[in-house]
Amino acid sequence: MTDLDLMKTLTQKADTKIILLVMDGLGGLPREVGGPTELEAADTPNLDRLAREGMLGLMHPVGIGISPGSGPGHLGLFGYDPLKYLIGRGVLEAVGIGLTLTDQDVAARGNFCTVDQDGIITDRRAGRISTEECARMVGLIEEITLPGVDLIVKPVRDYRFVLILRGPGLSQSLNETDPQKTGLRPLTVVPEENSDAARRTADLVNQWVEKVRERIRDQHPANMVTLRGWSTEPGLPSFQDVFKLNAAALAVYPMYKGLASLVGMTLIQGLTNLEDQLEALRKVWDAHDFFFVHYKYTDSRGEDGDFGAKVKEIEKVDFIIPRILEQKPDVLVVTGDHSTPAVLKSHSWHPVPLLFWAPGVTRSNPDVQGFGESQCLRGTLGQFNGKDLMKLITAYGKRQAKYGA
Amino acid sequence: MTDLDLMKTLTQKADTKIILLVMDGLGGLPREVGGPTELEAADTPNLDRLAREGMLGLMHPVGIGISPGSGPGHLGLFGYDPLKYLIGRGVLEAVGIGLTLTDQDVAARGNFCTVDQDGIITDRRAGRISTEECARMVGLIEEITLPGVDLIVKPVRDYRFVLILRGPGLSQSLNETDPQKTGLRPLTVVPEENSDAARRTADLVNQWVEKVRERIRDQHPANMVTLRGWSTEPGLPSFQDVFKLNAAALAVYPMYKGLASLVGMTLIQGLTNLEDQLEALRKVWDAHDFFFVHYKYTDSRGEDGDFGAKVKEIEKVDFIIPRILEQKPDVLVVTGDHSTPAVLKSHSWHPVPLLFWAPGVTRSNPDVQGFGESQCLRGTLGQFNGKDLMKLITAYGKRQAKYGA
Repeated sequence: MTDLDLMKTLTQKADTKIILLVMDGLGGLPREVGGPTELEAADTPNLDRLAREGMLGLMHPVGIGISPGSGPGHLGLFGYDPLKYLIGRGVLEAVGIGLTLTDQDVAARGNFCTVDQDGIITDRRAGRISTEECARMVGLIEEITLPGVDLIVKPVRDYRFVLILRGPGLSQSLNETDPQKTGLRPLTVVPEENSDAARRTADLVNQWVEKVRERIRDQHPANMVTLRGWSTEPGLPSFQDVFKLNAAALAVYPMYKGLASLVGMTLIQGLTNLEDQLEALRKVWDAHDFFFVHYKYTDSRGEDGDFGAKVKEIEKVDFIIPRILEQKPDVLVVTGDHSTPAVLKSHSWHPVPLLFWAPGVTRSNPDVQGFGESQCLRGTLGQFNGKDLMKLITAYGKRQAKYGA
Repeated sequence: MTDLDLMKTLTQKADTKIILLVMDGLGGLPREVGGPTELEAADTPNLDRLAREGMLGLMHPVGIGISPGSGPGHLGLFGYDPLKYLIGRGVLEAVGIGLTLTDQDVAARGNFCTVDQDGIITDRRAGRISTEECARMVGLIEEITLPGVDLIVKPVRDYRFVLILRGPGLSQSLNETDPQKTGLRPLTVVPEENSDAARRTADLVNQWVEKVRERIRDQHPANMVTLRGWSTEPGLPSFQDVFKLNAAALAVYPMYKGLASLVGMTLIQGLTNLEDQLEALRKVWDAHDFFFVHYKYTDSRGEDGDFGAKVKEIEKVDFIIPRILEQKPDVLVVTGDHSTPAVLKSHSWHPVPLLFWAPGVTRSNPDVQGFGESQCLRGTLGQFNGKDLMKLITAYGKRQAKYGA
C-alpha cells in the first residue's frame, strides 16, 4: 500500500485545527566548528518555549543526503513522496500566478534575455528587468498566434514569464533552450522522445520563438527569450481527498501558492507580507482546518550568504508566534522545506529542524532547551522523511483511525 | 526512481577528494555490562578529534538486524543496495585475484580438503596448507579438460582456489559440495533449477571433480576438493557512471580488491600493508578523486575472539590518521563494512560506528567527545542504511545537484 493509499484509508474528519508554518530554507550550518547555526544564533524565546513544551525532530524533505528544490521540498511536507511525484518548473510558474491548467496544456518557464547582433546571449536574465518591464515585454508577444493551438503568455516576476501551449496532441518531451551560459545562442527546441506529439510541439515552439525574435529584436535589454521546464499538470491526488483536510494556503510568493494549488489547497489571495498572512489566518480560521503559512525570506537571506540577515528573518517569525497561538491551534508545526545554510548560499541536503507542538498529546523531552539543530538531534521525533510528516500531523490532530482491527 | 538512478541523475563532477577508510569488522561489543567496546577501549586521539570536529552516526550495512557478509557489506558502502545486487563467492574470489570474467563464465570458490580412504572428509581445509602448497596442487589439476567448455583453475590463498567454467549454455544454479562438517563425503553437484544449462553444468562439474580426485588422491594433506559460491558476473552499474567519481581501491586482500573491481574502481596493485597503502594514497592522489582504503585485521582479530588484539589494530589505524589528513581530503569517512565483535567471534548485525569528517559543511555535536559506538548513538547522522552513505558522501563532497526545481 502506498503512503497516500494508507492515509486515504485511515484519515477522517475531526474538529481540530492545524497550522504548518514553513520558514523556507530554515536549516543552517555553523560558520565555524562548534558554532551555532542561524536558528541557534537567533533569539527565539517563543519557539524555544514551544520546543520545551512540544517535540523536536530532524526531517529529510526528500531523503537522506538529497538537496531538495522547492517543489520536492513542499511536496514532501504536504505528504506526497517527492521521488514519486514530480512537478515541472513550467507548471509551477503557471499555477503560481494563478493560472489553472487543463490536461491539454504544456507549460514552460520563460526568461527574457539579451542577445547581441549575432544572436549570442550576453545576459541570460536581460539585466534582471523589473516585473513592470516584463509585463510590457509580454504585451509585445502575447498576440502571437500559431495554427491548431492556443497560446497563453503571462509575466511572472522580474525577467521571468510563463508560456502555455493549449491543444490536443502536445508533448512535454522537449529540451530547454537556455544554454546555461552567455556566449552561446539560445538552443533550438528539439523533441526528446520519438513521437509525433513531441515533434509537432517542438515545431510549434520553434515557430513561436522565431515570431518572438522578430517582434522584440529592437527592444533593450530584453530582446530574446529562453524556455525551460516543459511540463504538464501532474494530476496529484487531492489533499482534501487524502487527508480529509480543508486546507488554506497563506503564501506570498507565486511558487508556493502554485504548489499548494496543485494539491488542491484554497489559495488566499492578495497577501504581501507576514502581517497580511496573520490577518488572513484570523479571517479564514473558521472556514478551514489546515493552514499552510509560508515565509520566504529565511531562504532568500540564506541564498544571499548573509548569516546575520537570516538570523533576523528567523527572529521576525519568532516574534509573531504569540499571535499565531492566539488562534489556539491543536497542532502547530514549524519547519522548513529544505536547508539553505548561509555558508553554502544554496539549498542543501542537511536535515531540517522541525518543531511539533500539540498540547496534551506529545511527549516532551527534558534534554531540550530550545529550537535549534543540535536540540532537534535530541528530539522526541528523531529523524524522518518529509513524506511522513502528514502522518504525524493527522495522527496528533486526532484525524487518523487505527490501522487494522 | 531507484537509488542508483537518482544518483546517476544528480551527481556531477567537482574538484573534491574523498577518502573512504574501511576498518573491516569495526563494530564491537563490550565484554561486560557497561564496559567499552573494542573501539571505545582503544586509545584513538586522532579519530576522537575528527569525531568532535565532524559528525558521527550508526550505519546498518544491509539493514536493521542483518549480519552482512563482506560482499553485501561493501556493496552497501559503495552505494549499491545489497538486497538488490548479489555477488557470489566464486565471482568474488575470481576477480579478487585479478581475473576478468566474461558473460559466459560460471565461477566457484574451491577448497582443498583432506579425505580418508573411504572419501570421508577429515579436514575441511586440508590442514590450512600454505599458498605455495595450494599453487603446487593447482598445478596438478589445471591441465584437466572437459568437452565444450574452457576451464580456469587458480590458487587464491592458503587452501582456497577458484574454478571457472567458460562457455555457452552454463548455469550457476548448483548446490555447494562442502557438507560443512567433517565425517561426511563431499556432496555430488546437482542442478538447483530445472534447466538444461543447470543439468549440463552439474554434469561437467561432477566430471571435473572425479578427474581431480584421480589426480590428487595420493597427495597429502590436500587430496580432495569442495566447491561452493557458484556465480556469474553480476553486471553492476559502474561507480564512475553512477557517482561521477574516478575511484582507486587501495586494498591488500583479494576479496576487497575484487569487490572494488566489480564496481569499476581502479585497483592499485602490489600493496601488502598499511605503509604501502599510505604511500600509494600519496602517489595516486592526483589521478583519482575517491579512495577506498581497506584494513583487514580489525575483522581478523574480531573473528579470533581476541578483544585486546582488535583494540591494537584499531590503534594502528588511528596512528596513521595524521598522515592521511596530510592529503587534505574534502571528505573523510571512517567506518566498517559490518561489526565483528570479539565476544561473538563472527560478523554481526550490530550497526557500525561511522565517522564523517568534511570541514565547513557539517554540524558537529557538542555531546560528542570521541569515536565510539555510544558516541555514535548521539551522532548528528543518526542511524541509516549503508546504501545511503554514498548519497551523503556525494552531497558533502559537493558533487550532487539539487533534486527538482
